Amino acid sequence: MRVAVVGVGLIGGSVALAARRRANATISAFDADPAALAAAVARGAVQRACSTVADAVEGADAAFVAVPVGALPATVAEVLAAAGDDCVVSDVGSVKRVVVERIGDERFVGGHPLAGAQTSGVEHAREDLFDGATWYLTPTERTSGVLYERLHRLLCGLGARPAVIDAAEHDRLAALVSHLPHVLANELVCQAARALDDGGLRLPATGPSFRDATRVAGAPSSIWSDIFIANRDAVGEALAALIARLQAARELILSGSQETICAWIESAAAERRALVEAQLAGEPLRELRVAVPNRPGVIARLALALARQGVNIADLALHPAADMSQGVVALWVADGATAQRAAQIVQGMGFPVALQ
Amino acid sequence: MRVAVVGVGLIGGSVALAARRRANATISAFDADPAALAAAVARGAVQRACSTVADAVEGADAAFVAVPVGALPATVAEVLAAAGDDCVVSDVGSVKRVVVERIGDERFVGGHPLAGAQTSGVEHAREDLFDGATWYLTPTERTSGVLYERLHRLLCGLGARPAVIDAAEHDRLAALVSHLPHVLANELVCQAARALDDGGLRLPATGPSFRDATRVAGAPSSIWSDIFIANRDAVGEALAALIARLQAARELILSGSQETICAWIESAAAERRALVEAQLAGEPLRELRVAVPNRPGVIARLALALARQGVNIADLALHPAADMSQGVVALWVADGATAQRAAQIVQGMGFPVALQ
Repeated sequence: MRVAVVGVGLIGGSVALAARRRANATISAFDADPAALAAAVARGAVQRACSTVADAVEGADAAFVAVPVGALPATVAEVLAAAGDDCVVSDVGSVKRVVVERIGDERFVGGHPLAGAQTSGVEHAREDLFDGATWYLTPTERTSGVLYERLHRLLCGLGARPAVIDAAEHDRLAALVSHLPHVLANELVCQAARALDDGGLRLPATGPSFRDATRVAGAPSSIWSDIFIANRDAVGEALAALIARLQAARELILSGSQETICAWIESAAAERRALVEAQLAGEPLRELRVAVPNRPGVIARLALALARQGVNIADLALHPAADMSQGVVALWVADGATAQRAAQIVQGMGFPVALQ
Repeated sequence: MRVAVVGVGLIGGSVALAARRRANATISAFDADPAALAAAVARGAVQRACSTVADAVEGADAAFVAVPVGALPATVAEVLAAAGDDCVVSDVGSVKRVVVERIGDERFVGGHPLAGAQTSGVEHAREDLFDGATWYLTPTERTSGVLYERLHRLLCGLGARPAVIDAAEHDRLAALVSHLPHVLANELVCQAARALDDGGLRLPATGPSFRDATRVAGAPSSIWSDIFIANRDAVGEALAALIARLQAARELILSGSQETICAWIESAAAERRALVEAQLAGEPLRELRVAVPNRPGVIARLALALARQGVNIADLALHPAADMSQGVVALWVADGATAQRAAQIVQGMGFPVALQ
C-alpha cells in the first residue's frame, strides 16, 4: 500500500510511522518546511520526500492531509486534484465543517483523531500515538463506500478506533469537550497571574485542580488560532451557555444553601461517572449483515444513522455482489442491547439485516 | 512528642501516620465515627483511640483538627478549651478566614496542606502524602512564636514545606486556584451531558483536555459544599471576574482576528510558564539572622511581610535570649536575589539582620 502524508508534524509524522511499521505501507510525503521533511525521513517515517504536493500524492492509495486547520480546504483541494481516482483522501483537522462543507469529492472523508500531546513536531511523532484512540470520520452522502472502507481498515491497522459522526455534530462536540476547556485554561491562567500581580504576590504553590485545568493553556497559537476561528460559531455558543451556567452557579454558591449546593455537586458526580463509563466500554462485538444497494452514500447514511443513536461501528466490511448492483455491509457493533438496537435502526431504514 | 488528631479521614489519618513514623510521635485521636477511628488504629496510625475530644487532646504537644470546614470553628474551640497552655493547635481546612477570624487564641495557627487525592477516608491515608507539599500557615499577630516554631518544625518533619500567608489572601488565592476549577469542572460536565442528551447522542470519546478539566467534578459534596459556603464571597468574586473574562474571550473569538487570538494564546503560554517555573524553584537556601524583641506577633509580622513580597520561608528557628527580653530568628530563604530582598524587607521593618 502507498500512503501519502502532506504535513509531517506530530500527527502527520505519527500517521506515517504507524502506516509504515504496522501496515507495511510505503510513505511519500510533502511538507512546506524542508527541515520537517528531512527530520521525518531521518526518523524512518518517510521513504520518499517530495518537493511538491502532486509528487507526494502520485500513485497513492490513501492520502492524509495533516496541516493547520486554516490551510485545510486549499490543501485538501490540491491533494484531490493530484490524486488518482482510486485514492482515498482524508485530513486530521480538529474542526470538520470548514473542510467537509467545501469539498464535494466522493474520494474525500473528513477525519479527526483524538490523539495528540502537549508537544508538536515530527521529532515527537510516535507509532503508537493512535492506539485505542477514537478517530472521528465524517463521511457524507457523496462518499464512496469502497474508499471509505479502505480508510476505515487502514485506521484500524494504525491502532485507532474509527467512529462516524456528522461534521456539524463533531464541531459542536469538539467545542464543548476540547475548544471550551482550552479557552478556560487560558483565562484561568491569565486571571491567576493578574490577581497575583495586583497583590504583589507570587503563587507559591497551586493545587492539582489548577494544574489539571490549565495544562493546555497556551497551546501552540498557530494551530489553536485556526481552530478557534474555524469553529467560532460553535465555540461562541458553548461559551455563552457556559457563562449562563457560571452565573447560575455563582448565585447558588452565594445563596449558601447547603442542600442545593450538595445536590448540584452530586449531579456533576453522576454525570461524570456516566461519561467515564461510556468511554470505558470495551464490550464484546457482534456482527450485523446488511443488504444494501451499491450506491454512493449508503455507507455514510448507515453509519450516520447508527452514530446518531449512539451506536459505534467498531469495524466494517463491504462485500459487493458480482454484478455490483448490490452488496452486503458487515458491521461490528457492541454485543447485546446495542446490537439489537442497531438491527432495528437498520431495518427501520428499509435494509434487510441479519445478526450473525 | 504527643500529637492529637481530631478527625481521622484522609488528611487527619495521613498526619497521624507521618507523625508516628517520621517524628516518632505518639498519636491520640478522636473521630465522631467510631468505625473511622477503629480503622485508624488498625492501620497503626493511632495508638490511643479516645471517646471524647478532651481525652484525645489531654497532654498533647500539638493538636490537628481535620474535620470538614463547616465544623471547624466549633471543633477548634473545643480543642483549645481542652488543650494545655503549651499545646499548639492547628487545622487543615481549605478555607481559613472562617476559623482564623473567630479564634483569638495565641496557641492557634491556621493551616492548609496542599495535598489530597480523589479518594477520602483513613484507608487511603499515606505517610508520604505531604512529601514536598506546600502547607500554608496563617499565623496572626497574636500567635505565640514558640508554638509556631514547634508547628513549623513538625510539619517539615512530616515532609511538608510550610509557607506563611495571610488568611484573607489565602482564601482569595484558594478561590482562584482551587475552588474556581472545581466549579468549572462541575459545570463543564453538566453542560456536556445536557448537550448530548438534547441531541440524543452519547459522548463516544473525549479529548484529554476535557478529562483533565473535569477530573475534580463531583468531588465529595459533604466537604465541598462547606468549602463553597465558607468561601462564598471570594468564590463569587473570582467567578464574576472569570465570567467577564470569558465574555471578552468570546468576543475575541467571534471577531475572527488571527493576530489578536494568537497574542491572547501566547500571553497565556507565557503566564503558565511563569507560574510553573515559580513552583519548580528548588533553589539552594541562605540563612538570615534577625534580632527581634520577644513579643507575640513578631514572627507572624516577619513571615507575612516576607510572604507578601514573594519570599518563602523554607525553615526557621527561634533563639531567645536568656532573659527572654529579645531573641534571634533564623530564617532560611532561597539564596541569591531572594535572600538579598528578604534582608532589605526585614531591615525596612526596623529589625537588625545578618546574612550568614
